[in-house]
Amino acid sequence: MSFYPPSFDNLTDHLRRLPGVGAKSAQRMAFWLLSLSDSEAEAFAASITEAKHLIHHCTVCQNLTDSELCGICSSAKRDKSKICVVSDPRDVTALERSREYNGTYHVLHGVISPLRHIGPNDLTVQELLQRMDGTVEEVIMATNPDAEGEATAMYLSRLLKPLGVRVTRIAYGIPVGSNLEFADDATLFRALEGRRDL
Amino acid sequence: MSFYPPSFDNLTDHLRRLPGVGAKSAQRMAFWLLSLSDSEAEAFAASITEAKHLIHHCTVCQNLTDSELCGICSSAKRDKSKICVVSDPRDVTALERSREYNGTYHVLHGVISPLRHIGPNDLTVQELLQRMDGTVEEVIMATNPDAEGEATAMYLSRLLKPLGVRVTRIAYGIPVGSNLEFADDATLFRALEGRRDL
Repeated sequence: MSFYPPSFDNLTDHLRRLPGVGAKSAQRMAFWLLSLSDSEAEAFAASITEAKHLIHHCTVCQNLTDSELCGICSSAKRDKSKICVVSDPRDVTALERSREYNGTYHVLHGVISPLRHIGPNDLTVQELLQRMDGTVEEVIMATNPDAEGEATAMYLSRLLKPLGVRVTRIAYGIPVGSNLEFADDATLFRALEGRRDL
Repeated sequence: MSFYPPSFDNLTDHLRRLPGVGAKSAQRMAFWLLSLSDSEAEAFAASITEAKHLIHHCTVCQNLTDSELCGICSSAKRDKSKICVVSDPRDVTALERSREYNGTYHVLHGVISPLRHIGPNDLTVQELLQRMDGTVEEVIMATNPDAEGEATAMYLSRLLKPLGVRVTRIAYGIPVGSNLEFADDATLFRALEGRRDL
């Protein structure tokens, strides 16, 4: 039983639904929010509704954006003949951090997962196929190297290859800065298989 | 550098200020909030502004409430001749859970702490003194058993005793269900000192 006012319980109930937040953390957050000034609390609440209101998918690459096109798709400096397919907007940020890639992206917003009843129609596969207008030369599959990511990459490559586009997959191998001793068998096998001339 | 839309960064910046939330958790929370339906996101934001708008201090005991008087102060069943002084609204909830106490409370909203520049004027001490109208028979000090809680209890007892009111302190001792072996010296000393006839 709670001894707090109903609006306080309502607030903690909402905070508790956030990923990784339990009853105690939610209460701590609620007390912290109440300790804010009125304008700060308003700004906090507005940041939620505003983000929800403004953010949608880029009409080309399906990444998150608050304009019609995302910054990458609207940039004249990016190579539009290359598309890197990722499962999540977070992967775009991770790849951008490497400063290696100059092409565009396509965000699937998930991977094919029969166990979780996610099929190609739940992803942005149609939007990807619509981008194959002859100007695209290479599609790089950068889904995660797990069973579902692999299956999704395989599925898409079978759809894309008949359209005359080169389909590649990011390299497997040992992570930079890691230790051979602790690498798993599958990774070492792939690292040997993908060896290059020095 | 961020590759997300500004309104997304604004949202994660706000979430990151929540206690116990780092950059990664804030991002996870932001994605989760964006995955909500419009009405759910609105309700989430409204729970913050509503709680902030409605919740204030009870005019008598200074506990959190969204009416003029809190549920305990407005209840005819509670013994108004006893006041239990606590430092935080959470302590009221903790004591209420014990179902042992039938009096009222007084929430100080802090403890005297010279190191953190918190003096009696930053707490609800004046409001407590104003409640000493002759009907109050006992004030129970239930501040935490640490240096600051002790000092606050001592300070208040010196103010209250000249007003002819009985001032008591909650008992020290070993916690129920704990192990003597792991109790600290000070607690064991107090437990022996406070022993009772069986």
